[in-house]
Amino acid sequence: MTYFLDPASAAGFRPETFAKADLARGAQLFLGLNCFEPGQRQTAHTHADADKFYLVVSGKARMTVGTETRVAGSGALVWAPAGVPHGVDEALERTVLLVGIAPPPATARR
Amino acid sequence: MTYFLDPASAAGFRPETFAKADLARGAQLFLGLNCFEPGQRQTAHTHADADKFYLVVSGKARMTVGTETRVAGSGALVWAPAGVPHGVDEALERTVLLVGIAPPPATARR
Repeated sequence: MTYFLDPASAAGFRPETFAKADLARGAQLFLGLNCFEPGQRQTAHTHADADKFYLVVSGKARMTVGTETRVAGSGALVWAPAGVPHGVDEALERTVLLVGIAPPPATARR
Repeated sequence: MTYFLDPASAAGFRPETFAKADLARGAQLFLGLNCFEPGQRQTAHTHADADKFYLVVSGKARMTVGTETRVAGSGALVWAPAGVPHGVDEALERTVLLVGIAPPPATARR
């Protein structure tokens, strides 16, 4: 196992819907990727008890947190604290998001 | 308050030692920046009960986690799970690290 990871090289895509990849999982924090082809989306949802962020590794997407909608490009950090609905309205390019969730979600859903 | 943050624009530097900036703090997760001038370092330390990551926003630094030492450049993700010592041996350029810690540290130390 290595502690030094390359998110960009872990990206993978699916034609039917956005793709997820796990990067790291501890007792307190999960890190992974959400990878979107242009036009793909993630339905808005809420984690009642978990804080979450997205970091745009590459690409560009229109995203919503709470009542705020913005186009987030490479390097943008999107903060979705516990209880606040969030989602990806539409990827405007092929887009890779680093995602962190604390505490980690169950393996079946995130 | 906005949920959309620009880590690069929040960076700040100090001549005497590396500088910290807070970006977001929830009940479960803290996000901030560690900003290094060339040659500055962060002494290796351990969070007994917190998982942590560094994401290299810009620059290049020699970093150690556990017994593994590597030069991490822009885009690299460095995973430091609870109980594993980690630090920045030396920034080789002006370097900005996005840091996440779960659960959040007390405000006085991180």
